[in-house]
Amino acid sequence: MFSVTVRDHLMVAHSLRGEVFGPAHRLHGVTYVVDATFRGERLDGDGVVVDIGRAADELGRVVAGLTYRNLDDDPSLGGTNTTTETLARVVADRLADAVHAGALGEAARGLVGLAVTLHESHVAWASYERAL
Amino acid sequence: MFSVTVRDHLMVAHSLRGEVFGPAHRLHGVTYVVDATFRGERLDGDGVVVDIGRAADELGRVVAGLTYRNLDDDPSLGGTNTTTETLARVVADRLADAVHAGALGEAARGLVGLAVTLHESHVAWASYERAL
Amino acid sequence: MFSVTVRDHLMVAHSLRGEVFGPAHRLHGVTYVVDATFRGERLDGDGVVVDIGRAADELGRVVAGLTYRNLDDDPSLGGTNTTTETLARVVADRLADAVHAGALGEAARGLVGLAVTLHESHVAWASYERAL
Amino acid sequence: MFSVTVRDHLMVAHSLRGEVFGPAHRLHGVTYVVDATFRGERLDGDGVVVDIGRAADELGRVVAGLTYRNLDDDPSLGGTNTTTETLARVVADRLADAVHAGALGEAARGLVGLAVTLHESHVAWASYERAL
Amino acid sequence: MFSVTVRDHLMVAHSLRGEVFGPAHRLHGVTYVVDATFRGERLDGDGVVVDIGRAADELGRVVAGLTYRNLDDDPSLGGTNTTTETLARVVADRLADAVHAGALGEAARGLVGLAVTLHESHVAWASYERAL
Amino acid sequence: MFSVTVRDHLMVAHSLRGEVFGPAHRLHGVTYVVDATFRGERLDGDGVVVDIGRAADELGRVVAGLTYRNLDDDPSLGGTNTTTETLARVVADRLADAVHAGALGEAARGLVGLAVTLHESHVAWASYERAL
Repeated sequence: MFSVTVRDHLMVAHSLRGEVFGPAHRLHGVTYVVDATFRGERLDGDGVVVDIGRAADELGRVVAGLTYRNLDDDPSLGGTNTTTETLARVVADRLADAVHAGALGEAARGLVGLAVTLHESHVAWASYERAL
Repeated sequence: MFSVTVRDHLMVAHSLRGEVFGPAHRLHGVTYVVDATFRGERLDGDGVVVDIGRAADELGRVVAGLTYRNLDDDPSLGGTNTTTETLARVVADRLADAVHAGALGEAARGLVGLAVTLHESHVAWASYERAL
Repeated sequence: MFSVTVRDHLMVAHSLRGEVFGPAHRLHGVTYVVDATFRGERLDGDGVVVDIGRAADELGRVVAGLTYRNLDDDPSLGGTNTTTETLARVVADRLADAVHAGALGEAARGLVGLAVTLHESHVAWASYERAL
Repeated sequence: MFSVTVRDHLMVAHSLRGEVFGPAHRLHGVTYVVDATFRGERLDGDGVVVDIGRAADELGRVVAGLTYRNLDDDPSLGGTNTTTETLARVVADRLADAVHAGALGEAARGLVGLAVTLHESHVAWASYERAL
Repeated sequence: MFSVTVRDHLMVAHSLRGEVFGPAHRLHGVTYVVDATFRGERLDGDGVVVDIGRAADELGRVVAGLTYRNLDDDPSLGGTNTTTETLARVVADRLADAVHAGALGEAARGLVGLAVTLHESHVAWASYERAL
Repeated sequence: MFSVTVRDHLMVAHSLRGEVFGPAHRLHGVTYVVDATFRGERLDGDGVVVDIGRAADELGRVVAGLTYRNLDDDPSLGGTNTTTETLARVVADRLADAVHAGALGEAARGLVGLAVTLHESHVAWASYERAL
């Protein structure tokens, strides 16, 4: 199995609903350093599992749709509790849509899976992985 | 699949028995930077796979039971050869016990797996992963 | 010259006033990974420039006074524009006050300087250093 | 499942053939920070999945066979397009040959898999994993 | 003293002339992860030592003028031996020119110094610092 | 000013004498990731401030004289309290002796300073810098 990972980041405000979150129920913020991993069983004729430049561009596009915002007010998130796990899925699902729409090129249609990790600090991170 | 990882560290003396270890058979020491990953198929009503605060607390409790010691003299390790692989399993098993005892809360009962990585330097680390 | 550095982090919402900030004028957020460096010309009788445990505790106390907040509403910041540079100075000045008040112990009274670095992502950080 | 990872690096010139590569079709270069992960279901009598010293030595030997070269002229690569994915497989396959030849010792014969990650910068890396 | 640092990277082929370089006299390559630090004694009215967006843009422009090349053939380097130390100075001097030309804005005219670090691997890096 | 830094690591047991150290007065251990920085005002004819290969070799030699030991029993340390600050000075002084003895070559005789940082975990490190 091959994989390619690209890294970007986003900076958002949000608050979390639920007793479990303690002080994080207040409006606060976070830098998410985002790693997106594209997995495939084989390489194409150029020797790549995905065009790394296009992968970085698409991750940049997804990040641009979330960054420098208060996520509590982002209608695209529909009032969901924006935990790190949940946002990892949001990023992964938007990248999966891009793959299916052909935005990462023909080679990317052979991808079998996708994983997204959001690092919220030097001591905590969360991931979501899914099939394609 | 979702996962949440928290990081802590422990600082121990130990020696390793066996020809394979060369100079590491002498009493020496190590800082282990410890990453504990909790895996689950779905999120609970709050949108988490595990309460990250409780996960960090439990990892801290397990680390506190090992750190600032000479592991050669730790009766809880029963004379085992405390290689990095072995200690990764010790940490994982103690965390698994905590999950099963309910110490990470009700949401954590839905976890399906656990992985622990111990970084012994900037050029070497070892992991153990297990089901829950 | 000796120095000791301890790391912690804080997670805040804020917005920045001024044309230069582009999308960062919107309410957004950031994780600051904070490194506080304590500098001294000589070691005390125990062989330390500062008690590293106390240094970590004081940094933790300063961080606790800022984290999980919307800095736009923090009266202790008096309406200042909370750029990374400015916050590095806030953290450094609060740590300097603690040193002068004796909170880091007698050894710390021999410190000659302090530097604070705030990492806002994997590609940008800012520092402030001052005498003590 | 246990694993042990060791890190090394190699520094090579190369060019990439194919429209997809843009400016990377020109002769340029790269530092690959290489992580080799050895996986096994159980530990041997010494408590290791593989002798970490031997693992580091073998990775060093494989790296020495590639570093400080222009890969476009390396006959052992047979004209292949040396993308990061492809080189991850080259390193993994050479390590697998070493395992099968007994170069990592008897314990290593119980290994079940191998993964190699090549970090090409702080924002991109690729991996290849295979059975043993 | 305040400082702001931005990170980028460049990927080049080169060879080094001189007995001291051993195998590095052969054509090989390197990824340089580049940190550029801008230093100033005071903040401007917006609370910044330099516009971090413009700093990142200028570093990106300097990096773009060097990356994806064989430095042995780069006429702008005039046949210099492109050691890591030398390239750190090249990057710093080009950034200094940009500051003096006003490319980083009026605030940047108050900068007093510049430092550039080039990381060539996880175990080696070099820096050059200069006044402005 | 130019500088070159090389990284290595050492793994030792030790205990610390003094009330300030709390649980660290017990025999425990630590991995120190060691960064040695060599500073010079100018480059030699080859374009280097120091031969990076020789710098790495000398650091390796100094590290080999300390690693895989119980520092409480190391006669070369003369019963000193082996805090991180103190060990940073020990490593720096041994490297300085090597520079003065010519072990880093003629170019290294132009060095003006040396700094050594010992990272004891992902959240704490200490440095010592001195003239040459």
